Amino acid sequence: MTTPPITPVILTGGSGTRLWPLSRAARAKQFLPLTGDTTMLERTIDRVSGDRFGPPLLVGGAAQAEILQSLAGEAETILEPEARNTAPAIALAALALPPETPMLVMPSDQVIADVAAFETAVGKAAALAANGWLVTFGIAPTGPETGYGYIRQGEALGDTGFRVERFVEKPDRETAQGFLDAGGYHWNGGIFLFTAGRYLDALGNHAPTILAAARGAFDAGRRDGAVHRPDAAGFAEAPAISIDYAVMEKAEKVAVVPVAMGWSDIGSWDALHELMGKDAAGNALRGDVLAIDTANCLIRSEGPMVAAIGVEDLIVVATDDAVLILPRGESQRVKEAVEALKASEDGGKRL
Amino acid sequence: MTTPPITPVILTGGSGTRLWPLSRAARAKQFLPLTGDTTMLERTIDRVSGDRFGPPLLVGGAAQAEILQSLAGEAETILEPEARNTAPAIALAALALPPETPMLVMPSDQVIADVAAFETAVGKAAALAANGWLVTFGIAPTGPETGYGYIRQGEALGDTGFRVERFVEKPDRETAQGFLDAGGYHWNGGIFLFTAGRYLDALGNHAPTILAAARGAFDAGRRDGAVHRPDAAGFAEAPAISIDYAVMEKAEKVAVVPVAMGWSDIGSWDALHELMGKDAAGNALRGDVLAIDTANCLIRSEGPMVAAIGVEDLIVVATDDAVLILPRGESQRVKEAVEALKASEDGGKRL
Repeated sequence: MTTPPITPVILTGGSGTRLWPLSRAARAKQFLPLTGDTTMLERTIDRVSGDRFGPPLLVGGAAQAEILQSLAGEAETILEPEARNTAPAIALAALALPPETPMLVMPSDQVIADVAAFETAVGKAAALAANGWLVTFGIAPTGPETGYGYIRQGEALGDTGFRVERFVEKPDRETAQGFLDAGGYHWNGGIFLFTAGRYLDALGNHAPTILAAARGAFDAGRRDGAVHRPDAAGFAEAPAISIDYAVMEKAEKVAVVPVAMGWSDIGSWDALHELMGKDAAGNALRGDVLAIDTANCLIRSEGPMVAAIGVEDLIVVATDDAVLILPRGESQRVKEAVEALKASEDGGKRL
Repeated sequence: MTTPPITPVILTGGSGTRLWPLSRAARAKQFLPLTGDTTMLERTIDRVSGDRFGPPLLVGGAAQAEILQSLAGEAETILEPEARNTAPAIALAALALPPETPMLVMPSDQVIADVAAFETAVGKAAALAANGWLVTFGIAPTGPETGYGYIRQGEALGDTGFRVERFVEKPDRETAQGFLDAGGYHWNGGIFLFTAGRYLDALGNHAPTILAAARGAFDAGRRDGAVHRPDAAGFAEAPAISIDYAVMEKAEKVAVVPVAMGWSDIGSWDALHELMGKDAAGNALRGDVLAIDTANCLIRSEGPMVAAIGVEDLIVVATDDAVLILPRGESQRVKEAVEALKASEDGGKRL
């Protein structure tokens, strides 16, 4: 049997503040050139441009129309009238595709270092999807991380993957360590593969309100070239629920395909420092940076020149209107600055 | 005898890189609001505005015409065609004044915390100057500093001061400590008091080339309102020599008036940190700065907002085009960044 080309469905609607001050409300992580010269979104699109794939379908926020146009102007794009989490967003994509189309759903802000491993996993997942499985990719854990949900594998499905035994909420560190010790647990990285029809069927069974709202919005929407604009009033009726809650945790025939592919969601400046190439002194430098007698630092600027002298283990990120300085290993504390800015009278303009 | 009012002669021509990136070629330290809301120059002018003083006379570089106009537009100003060190600059001022006028010559970028002590010393120095002495102020040393010249006092001159026994070049630390242990040594802060005629006489005796060049430039200069512009070709003939070398170290009747007045020339970011008011955590913050769990830091910005989290003992100085970061106590290392910028292809634009 020849499998139809896979449609990469790339979710670009995410936002976050963990990489402040570089990431902003108006320019989220996926629109930044974090690991190379091109943005995370462009790298994501490039990754799924092989023969196996059809043209990508982007699903993003209406406020992102301009930046999506500039980065991927020719791609088919669905603009969510408002953010309603992943289940409704993926429903819009599924409605735009023939039912038999395999959809590879993935975030637009992740690093995958080992593309060959990724492609192998996609092949296995596609085979399962062709047999009606809803497939999630199980990222091989590299540590007892508490920032991800975990997936417990069940019975083996040939050599392609495993039935999902259960999804586990973000655990505490002790529990996470137990998962690693036990084996058979994977990180939930938010990458899925299934046919459009299978997803819509499962949605109809387990979250019919979402399906109805998405269908109503899709049908009442308008199309402008490659850009679909679903109807705002209809889409607003969709409950804002993730695909995990709405479908994956409830449906039958849910599989996990384990994969070790050098994955990262770059959840912090420390994570980026680990990913980046470094000089002999352990520094990851980017932009107009002068580092003298400086070691094990992440220093990057897209604004003023940064001159660091005699410092160690610092993270310094500069833009035209904000500079962040904190110790390496404590980059999660960026949220303290973000909270302070939110609470201040005019700090919001820096977010 | 009534003493004539003292003319403050304020030297604004200095430049330096020790407070980079805030101080620039085009905006030297004296034009920065380092310790308060007004610039060092404005604070210097304010300090000599009492009854004892006549209107100030500024001596600065021709390139500073605009900023001098904006900060002290009504003051009489002499614009040096080029920088030729202090002896020629002070000669221009002396030529502009009646010979009997006492001149209080001082840099424009110094802190004097104890103005009462300063005024007492000025009174003593004025009494000596009225008797034909060339007076230098001897700053009470607060440590074995190697960055200043020292003045060794000789015989007492009543209760006003001492004859200068000798001037000492910047010593090494051991020598400086010996001076402190011995007593009778003072820092040479570059503050002088003498009559205009006495200075010109001494210059004629010990550096006649300077006097001739200054007089030629002054006589051939032009005047534009309160601004004197000496002739450039004439002034270029003056050897670039300091008042110390040209006059004070050679002349007869040279006195030192010791004074402990909370003096600082703010020779480094560390020196400024010591001078500034600090919060309970020992931070001296200025500008748009957010400091969270941060201690014993100097952080100031006149450009991007700076957010520091969980750091200690750092100096951070931000402008629109450059950010400096180095450990507290090592701020003299700013020169390493300055040298690197000088050597780089386009780094000079940051200087």
